Amino acid sequence: MHLSFIPESTLLLGPGPSPVDESVLAATSQPTIGHLDKQCFALMNEIKQMLQQLFQTRNALTIPLSGPGSAGMEACVANLIEPGEKVVVCINGAFGQRIADSARKIGGNVVEIRAAWGQPIAPNALRDTLTRNPDAKSVCFVHGETSTGVLNDAQALCAVAREFGALTIVDAVTSLGGVEVKVNEWGIDAIFSGTQKCLSCPPGLSPISLSERAVTKLTQRQSPIPSWFLDLSLISNYWDISSRAYHHTAPINALYGLHQGLSNLLEEGQDTLIARHAECQELLVSGLETLGLECLVDKASQLPQLTTILIPDYMDDQMFREQLMNEYQIEIGGGIGELAGKVWRIGLMGNGARPEHVELLLDAMSQLHLRSFVEIEMRPDHAPQPACSLN
Amino acid sequence: MHLSFIPESTLLLGPGPSPVDESVLAATSQPTIGHLDKQCFALMNEIKQMLQQLFQTRNALTIPLSGPGSAGMEACVANLIEPGEKVVVCINGAFGQRIADSARKIGGNVVEIRAAWGQPIAPNALRDTLTRNPDAKSVCFVHGETSTGVLNDAQALCAVAREFGALTIVDAVTSLGGVEVKVNEWGIDAIFSGTQKCLSCPPGLSPISLSERAVTKLTQRQSPIPSWFLDLSLISNYWDISSRAYHHTAPINALYGLHQGLSNLLEEGQDTLIARHAECQELLVSGLETLGLECLVDKASQLPQLTTILIPDYMDDQMFREQLMNEYQIEIGGGIGELAGKVWRIGLMGNGARPEHVELLLDAMSQLHLRSFVEIEMRPDHAPQPACSLN
Repeated sequence: MHLSFIPESTLLLGPGPSPVDESVLAATSQPTIGHLDKQCFALMNEIKQMLQQLFQTRNALTIPLSGPGSAGMEACVANLIEPGEKVVVCINGAFGQRIADSARKIGGNVVEIRAAWGQPIAPNALRDTLTRNPDAKSVCFVHGETSTGVLNDAQALCAVAREFGALTIVDAVTSLGGVEVKVNEWGIDAIFSGTQKCLSCPPGLSPISLSERAVTKLTQRQSPIPSWFLDLSLISNYWDISSRAYHHTAPINALYGLHQGLSNLLEEGQDTLIARHAECQELLVSGLETLGLECLVDKASQLPQLTTILIPDYMDDQMFREQLMNEYQIEIGGGIGELAGKVWRIGLMGNGARPEHVELLLDAMSQLHLRSFVEIEMRPDHAPQPACSLN
Repeated sequence: MHLSFIPESTLLLGPGPSPVDESVLAATSQPTIGHLDKQCFALMNEIKQMLQQLFQTRNALTIPLSGPGSAGMEACVANLIEPGEKVVVCINGAFGQRIADSARKIGGNVVEIRAAWGQPIAPNALRDTLTRNPDAKSVCFVHGETSTGVLNDAQALCAVAREFGALTIVDAVTSLGGVEVKVNEWGIDAIFSGTQKCLSCPPGLSPISLSERAVTKLTQRQSPIPSWFLDLSLISNYWDISSRAYHHTAPINALYGLHQGLSNLLEEGQDTLIARHAECQELLVSGLETLGLECLVDKASQLPQLTTILIPDYMDDQMFREQLMNEYQIEIGGGIGELAGKVWRIGLMGNGARPEHVELLLDAMSQLHLRSFVEIEMRPDHAPQPACSLN
């Protein structure tokens, strides 16, 4: 069989996608069936049930949308925020900013709460803002900020929003599967995620879940939902076994992959997976310390699956990442937005979160680090010395 | 390897998805790479170039969107129609209706032109409507109506729209690859398609192309684009090799599949593929005639890749399709909308358009047809006789 494009495999330790399990890839390549075939109904129902387990919810409207995480974001925003309505958006990174941008595009009256990139959103700051804006109908925040490596305290932020009767819209693209996400217990009203982070599936689908309060809001809207493709009143009928009303053609093969990824995850157990993420970050951070490298985020707010490292003055951002990729076939991420050129982002997500991957990365970093040290030593105008190497 | 869901393979001869080639499935299951990896840039550029060939255009903004065909529809509508702006939408089936619904959702002032389901839109009807509505800024229509099996005359409709200076937005979800689609020559301004019809890829991506006129309209909008996920000013920068600005994580594995599907298609040659579709429909229609079954659509307007058959009184829609699926593992489609219960929809698309598939289908239909005849004969109150069987 002649394949037209053959990628060279790399070890994906960046901000996503994460390494996809062979079983997921194998599942994805099974023969396509019709989306109105009874077999497909079974597939879709099982995915819903597994997502409910993963999100720790009984929400009926728990489905994967047929688009990447940003489609999930937009679906929550466009369905639950009406034009002119006040919405508080917490911004401490690129993905909080994205929610604000998205809410403004559909006419939301956005009130921003900002924290520095690398700092978490303080629940008290949310309380103050809601006190000054009692007419805010919803609160949006990012659980795990992939741009900074900060874990916001979703439970505390949701509790504050509840005090004021505001709906909560939560970005769990990077958090889901890697840290605890308890939709029902925390009172999250709308949550969206992606498949390419801790779920170890290819990118392209966005699992979401809406509470009954959110569904009530959706059905009682005064204005039309400003999207046909992401209209959850139509999509929910497509995913509802009793109606199964045609909306679009679901991405069948991607759903095979998601089914497999969720099965793998639940077989390992969510608690085990979460522990694995925490353990790997500990290994990583301790190795980075030995190299004299510092994390951007304080330990108390660190997102286990995504670690941001401050780039030392004596190292070249772009060259270092290219060397890692070209010589060691390891991908890590650069900074984005305010942090472009200032941090590296190391993702240990899903299948990526394995001690052996951390070792490979630290070995490679150590060697490159040492090399930069030697190169600097050889320069006539050499800069401050890095700390000792791991080896 | 334990797979959590193993589908039973069926022969997909419905309105889509079509049978996916093994090479495409194999391509899809290759290891995921990062979407900002240089390898991925090459993948994306090659896909753009192949889509330009397929669409017969030099349009720079020619890319696959990360969602199904309806995402492509919404992208064209939401980016190119401003709130309050007048837009003419041609409706002669479910997918024309869908464009009208979508345009209204983003505030478009929709003027409808209707033709009966099963009839094409007359270019003169468009001319009359545009004469009465000279302030209409755009015209939308479906090239191949999957709900009815009608091929609208895209070239003629575009020519009329041009007379009035209106932009054209064309649904080519089912037409692309199965009949001629000449974006530049016909003066199409925005076109969207899907991967799961004549391109023989899994569902989930939507190739689109925008002319320079459409891009000018996009950049000169007065109001914000009411979508972040489908904002083509952002997405085009992601797909542009010179900027490659991060927007979302592209569905890498689906792109592997599309690259393979497009390579296969261009290797066969578009003209050959189009001829194959025409030939298969001829075989099908002649077999159906022998069975005494009638097509909904006149020969002059028949869409080669999708044939609608009027269900005779003496046959049961649901039972017939279930028998085909359960006993012969062949999927065909039922009617939707106005045609629910009235027609069957047979898709011979992409890899489905093979003479051997037509033979398998006609054989199975002939046997089931005969059986329904015998069953009727045995009823005391038997209905009119069907025509003779093929065998």
